[in-house]
Amino acid sequence: MKTKINVEFIDEILKGYLPKGNDKVLQAMEYSLFTGGKRFRPLLLLQTCKAVGNSVNGGAKELAAAIEFVHTYSLIHDDLPCMDNDDFRRGKRACHMQFGEATAVLAGDALLNLAVETALSGPLSSKKYQAACIFLFGKSGIGGLIHGQSLDLFTETTTVEQANDVALHKTGDLLRAALVCGAICGGANDSEITVFDDIAQKLGICYQIIDDIIDSKKCEKSFLDMFSERDLIEYAEKLSNEIKASCDSLQYDLQFIKDFCDQNLSRTK
Amino acid sequence: MKTKINVEFIDEILKGYLPKGNDKVLQAMEYSLFTGGKRFRPLLLLQTCKAVGNSVNGGAKELAAAIEFVHTYSLIHDDLPCMDNDDFRRGKRACHMQFGEATAVLAGDALLNLAVETALSGPLSSKKYQAACIFLFGKSGIGGLIHGQSLDLFTETTTVEQANDVALHKTGDLLRAALVCGAICGGANDSEITVFDDIAQKLGICYQIIDDIIDSKKCEKSFLDMFSERDLIEYAEKLSNEIKASCDSLQYDLQFIKDFCDQNLSRTK
Repeated sequence: MKTKINVEFIDEILKGYLPKGNDKVLQAMEYSLFTGGKRFRPLLLLQTCKAVGNSVNGGAKELAAAIEFVHTYSLIHDDLPCMDNDDFRRGKRACHMQFGEATAVLAGDALLNLAVETALSGPLSSKKYQAACIFLFGKSGIGGLIHGQSLDLFTETTTVEQANDVALHKTGDLLRAALVCGAICGGANDSEITVFDDIAQKLGICYQIIDDIIDSKKCEKSFLDMFSERDLIEYAEKLSNEIKASCDSLQYDLQFIKDFCDQNLSRTK
Repeated sequence: MKTKINVEFIDEILKGYLPKGNDKVLQAMEYSLFTGGKRFRPLLLLQTCKAVGNSVNGGAKELAAAIEFVHTYSLIHDDLPCMDNDDFRRGKRACHMQFGEATAVLAGDALLNLAVETALSGPLSSKKYQAACIFLFGKSGIGGLIHGQSLDLFTETTTVEQANDVALHKTGDLLRAALVCGAICGGANDSEITVFDDIAQKLGICYQIIDDIIDSKKCEKSFLDMFSERDLIEYAEKLSNEIKASCDSLQYDLQFIKDFCDQNLSRTK
């Protein structure tokens, strides 16, 4: 049976790892997980795994679920009044608006913890899988995503290097985890993994640039503070072309990454 | 060299796993980690490991650090205004009072993530260590500690079974993780692990009962709502005697657990 990797496939995986019960925190976790997310990270992870290894295995499903749990927890905590104070997320009431702040804090905590539990349910004796787990949680913590949030909230950003640094961590690090974990689970060699990592970092910057253009309020440290919209789109196009060239340098069918680039660029149109 | 398992030894381990840097969130993590905690959970974990296996290894140090990171993150989030709204912790300003709420949310998240990173740095290819990691994070999540916090915040507790249930999860589950992970790393067999798990559950209830007596404001669902102080102390003494009998049923020197029981009971005096 050929696996079709799409949002429905991801949602089935997520449902399989979400515990059942009447706990109010559990209800909040489920609510925030299923609010129409685009599932970019787990999709990229599974597609990369399949492109490299011709099938979805090696623990890719566990890590695809884990990465979406991490992403969802970070959105719940980001939306809290003391953080970005957003009442809505994807057109629906944010977790704390629907369930209260205390529940939202705990639901975020529980989703990060569930990401770990899910990762630990994978093929832990495989050295490759161990490396993928270490990469994922290295990129979600104080050396990755959380460092990016910290930079975004607390540091003055006045140069393009600093804006790149925020984007690389806040947006890029989970994309790096998606592509690198997918490549590892699929069986890519070290030099291929380096190329995937490079692609993912550029994808992160491209994605953040277009996000900044669409909604300059979203990101406190916006690329738009430093460059014109026209210059930024040109830069994102240049990076997208580099990404596509890197894709062509690998022996795999990476059309889905090229499509991701084009879809990203087309968001401003 | 004989390892002396004490607070200083634990603090050295914790320092070894805490990243260095200028990140404000990292400063908040360090602040909350080193505010004079008693380190009960890592101490119990390492002492159990040493009692069973005659040395501290098998990943016990990694898990001792991880369990304290989990405990500290849960305190930071517990103290937030939307949760218990405590301005002080162990006589010092709570994390959000010192660094602001946003930083406290991120510091808690980063400590839970650091717990995972630390656990993943252990001997992951060992089946025993894998089982210990799975037990720890099973007990810290929505099936353990967080479920206990949810029960504490959101459900009506009117029976002793319900009060026990809150205590078992909110206080007991990390103690279970401490003793069971220590026993696993030390090389205990399955039936011994079951005895350690039973001891830890009783310790959790004893500890919560005495906490409730000392500070009835600390726990929203207090045993004192249902029983007199005298009855509760009698119950805690009965459980402590059962714990000591269980310790004697095992072939190891578990004086440290008996001491823990006595120190706990003496807190009301």
